[in-house]
Amino acid sequence: MALPGQMMSMPLLISSLIQHAARHSGDTEIVSKRCEGDLHRYTWRDAELRSRRLAQALARLGCESGERVGTLAWNGHRHLEIYYGASGSALVCHTINPRLFPEQIAWIVGDAEDRVLCFDLTFLPLVEKLAPLLTTVRHFVLMSDRAHMPAASAIPNLLCYEELLAAEDGDYVWPQFDENTASSICYTSGTTGNPKGAVYSHRSSVLHAYGAALPDAMDCSAKDVILPVVPMFHVNAWGLPYSMAIVGAKVVFPGPHLDGKSLYELFENEGVTFSAGVPTVWLGLLTYVKSNNLRFSTFKRTVIGGSACPPAMLATLMDDYGVEVIHAWGMTELSPLGTLSKLNSKQLELPPEQQRRILEKQGKVIYGIDMAVIDDEGRALPWDGRSSGNLVVRGHWVIGSYFRQAASPLVTVDGQPGWFPTGDVATIDADGFMQITDRSKDVIKSGGEWISSIELENIAMAHPAVHEAAVIAALHPKWDERPLLVVVKKPGAEIGREEMLAFYEGKIAKWQIPDDVAFVAEIPHTATGKIQKLKLREQFKGYRLPGA
Amino acid sequence: MALPGQMMSMPLLISSLIQHAARHSGDTEIVSKRCEGDLHRYTWRDAELRSRRLAQALARLGCESGERVGTLAWNGHRHLEIYYGASGSALVCHTINPRLFPEQIAWIVGDAEDRVLCFDLTFLPLVEKLAPLLTTVRHFVLMSDRAHMPAASAIPNLLCYEELLAAEDGDYVWPQFDENTASSICYTSGTTGNPKGAVYSHRSSVLHAYGAALPDAMDCSAKDVILPVVPMFHVNAWGLPYSMAIVGAKVVFPGPHLDGKSLYELFENEGVTFSAGVPTVWLGLLTYVKSNNLRFSTFKRTVIGGSACPPAMLATLMDDYGVEVIHAWGMTELSPLGTLSKLNSKQLELPPEQQRRILEKQGKVIYGIDMAVIDDEGRALPWDGRSSGNLVVRGHWVIGSYFRQAASPLVTVDGQPGWFPTGDVATIDADGFMQITDRSKDVIKSGGEWISSIELENIAMAHPAVHEAAVIAALHPKWDERPLLVVVKKPGAEIGREEMLAFYEGKIAKWQIPDDVAFVAEIPHTATGKIQKLKLREQFKGYRLPGA
Repeated sequence: MALPGQMMSMPLLISSLIQHAARHSGDTEIVSKRCEGDLHRYTWRDAELRSRRLAQALARLGCESGERVGTLAWNGHRHLEIYYGASGSALVCHTINPRLFPEQIAWIVGDAEDRVLCFDLTFLPLVEKLAPLLTTVRHFVLMSDRAHMPAASAIPNLLCYEELLAAEDGDYVWPQFDENTASSICYTSGTTGNPKGAVYSHRSSVLHAYGAALPDAMDCSAKDVILPVVPMFHVNAWGLPYSMAIVGAKVVFPGPHLDGKSLYELFENEGVTFSAGVPTVWLGLLTYVKSNNLRFSTFKRTVIGGSACPPAMLATLMDDYGVEVIHAWGMTELSPLGTLSKLNSKQLELPPEQQRRILEKQGKVIYGIDMAVIDDEGRALPWDGRSSGNLVVRGHWVIGSYFRQAASPLVTVDGQPGWFPTGDVATIDADGFMQITDRSKDVIKSGGEWISSIELENIAMAHPAVHEAAVIAALHPKWDERPLLVVVKKPGAEIGREEMLAFYEGKIAKWQIPDDVAFVAEIPHTATGKIQKLKLREQFKGYRLPGA
Repeated sequence: MALPGQMMSMPLLISSLIQHAARHSGDTEIVSKRCEGDLHRYTWRDAELRSRRLAQALARLGCESGERVGTLAWNGHRHLEIYYGASGSALVCHTINPRLFPEQIAWIVGDAEDRVLCFDLTFLPLVEKLAPLLTTVRHFVLMSDRAHMPAASAIPNLLCYEELLAAEDGDYVWPQFDENTASSICYTSGTTGNPKGAVYSHRSSVLHAYGAALPDAMDCSAKDVILPVVPMFHVNAWGLPYSMAIVGAKVVFPGPHLDGKSLYELFENEGVTFSAGVPTVWLGLLTYVKSNNLRFSTFKRTVIGGSACPPAMLATLMDDYGVEVIHAWGMTELSPLGTLSKLNSKQLELPPEQQRRILEKQGKVIYGIDMAVIDDEGRALPWDGRSSGNLVVRGHWVIGSYFRQAASPLVTVDGQPGWFPTGDVATIDADGFMQITDRSKDVIKSGGEWISSIELENIAMAHPAVHEAAVIAALHPKWDERPLLVVVKKPGAEIGREEMLAFYEGKIAKWQIPDDVAFVAEIPHTATGKIQKLKLREQFKGYRLPGA
């Protein structure tokens, strides 16, 4: 008969994260550049007190355990208070991506049955337009003070966030409940079909926060000043709002100001040491820094994920600016962190060139997650760095099912059930480093062989005249599909088709070189900053390749 | 009604730690200097396979779920296999401190009802002597190969560890069970009364492993080569065998070879970057390094705990040898890590002198633990760095009760139940940094005022002629108690009573300076390397202070 352990028993709750920060790093600052234009400063102690007052306010509005509180907001202290005030009081925090189409936002709010919708001043026009469609919402809360409230609004009974908080005394004890209770919902960006909701639990979020803060993951510590560029409306800003509380770090929120100049000034003025975001954001920051001949004085490292980080960007940040790049991979269904690329003691003895090749991979799983690559029959493929297959994962912070969806998304690996299919195609090497070679729907199938569009894009991105590059499959009568390279040139740069294609020579096998180049003014992006391949493919539908 | 989360559900089990290491860092080395004299090398993949074979062997010996497997062993790969093989198969790993008195060992084995006892070759004579008293033990296993088995032994049916493993095929699937099941038992050193058992659970051990590996705690990562000096028979080597698996680090086990020369050579030959141990061990290593004019070429940082680290030792390691010292505090009842001292972003801007004062404190709690200082009536004291009180803790890896003890050890803080009283006296400052000022039973009560024996010891230790120092209370007719300083001089060093006492002037208030100095050849230590105050007090019972 099993012997029971005799340890204290307490649930893993999100409220315990901010209680810890308030109690043990109470004086540490949280700085927010707000959409109202000002720079707001307070401490973790203040944040926890205001989160409690928000919990009281939400209860006073009639919110009941398990009900959803939606947000349309930038990275800022009030958004943080909703993260903790809602989840901590057994409500469910539902962050909504404001960059989605308005109809998608309305659909998501309805699917989640949001009872309260909190939004930043920026989104007042959007919410005014959408309000009639948001039939589940009982209370609309503008996340600002009385001075910024509109004199009149199309939204009935529009509430003022600061007034709601001012009416409460903070005399509130965080409730204790089952750690498997839902803490928050994030919807996938839904490139095909309607978005689907991932319902995180308190347990999964706290375990993710531990894992994400580890030295081989985001390496969060109290010595850091952390600026999350990745939006809090995008998979909980990769869990940073939770990991930051675990370590009691100083935090800097950029609000809507994500242009190169604003970010650079905030980095320098607040002594930011660590940041995280998608490649697109760093493109903007680097362009600003380069064109103004600036240096970073405190910025030491950044996690880059969301899309594969082009090796050229990695090299610029590391070699020219001394910023360590931690390449990461994850997805909404993984809370989101799956893998990060950090060298181990053996690899630290390799020549720099070989180290760089490793850092360009998406890296190793955090303890708490497991992964495999499988073929189309669900058989595990070898970890040899070459065998490319469908990437599947499982672990404490991976979804088991989608909100309101009866069908299980899970698959089997070698007959063992319970693996989540990511839709990515990847290799894993003998050291456990994973590399995404493609999205399963982006891969180019040429004469029965697979060509990785990411590899082709990365090479193009290394050309000094290329600002952005995307590769899609164009139909070909003989080979079924052949790669077409779509390029946005850098301002003022000149490059032609022949020179571009010649750039591939010697870098990959001849048969993998794109058949043609299309120069365009802009490449379409999704709401989360990823290249919108679907749209690009539509744009180039029927494209006639030379010789085809 | 609460909304359930929709994440995958899997228990936090110790077997998942080594499965993770074997799967994702399978080729990473584990090096063991063994008591047989050789240096053994294998990998995390080998360790996991052999742990599975051990699990099979233990089942074949008739061990049933929940039964205890005792160990008397040094830090080495076989001990690691028992950690995982026993706990992973729902048995309970019971590590026994071989430095305890033989009668205490026999008592502990009986209290734990160990069914199997595994022991290193070193302890064969001890076990032969004790065997008749160990009536609960059905199988004695010598942790070695056939070549090292004694031709004849007083132990009936003595089994050979390597033969047990050789008989199994490793075709074993780690069982899944309730994460609150007991994983291991450690007994307190029992300075007063019989030792008491702390019964850790799989959940508490895994959460401790996450917390202990965090950047502000032990900062374990795959880039480290970790040598745990702290014994695996002493509170699970501070949890390192688990945290090392989380990060997949290269590991070096020193076996019984803990002298300065052996440790130094192992550090250099294997490229050790990180270690952890009690102050006594570092005394030995530093003496060897100093007297041979050596430097460390890879050793970068060490956690020092178990007893307060004397500031002089901290200064030597950091200033003379460039080894970062992370001062830590914990205890058996805490799995054991409670606090560690690392600077935050604000403190990194302070002058070096002030930073050093902070690093000399025991530091901040890891997320997962909370602490408070209380007065004798259970009222919480302010966090001002001055108010000294009884240190109490609670958290995921704190015991709720002792093995086989009906009485709850827990106390209330401001009327709130569920806090574990540590027996330490401490202050906490506004930044959450805790400093132990004494054991509650070691504090000196002079005329109603408390004097910290640790503070007096630390000052004495900073004198170049002092090898080790201890302060105890001597009875005094007027002041009740007054401090008596007991000193072991460095070999060849000369210092007298007057010079020693004069060394205190200007460093503390006059009334706190010890009344007398006793020079001795040796100070008694407990089995875990702590100064044995109880024995010292007995030794100096009836000591007549000058003027008393």
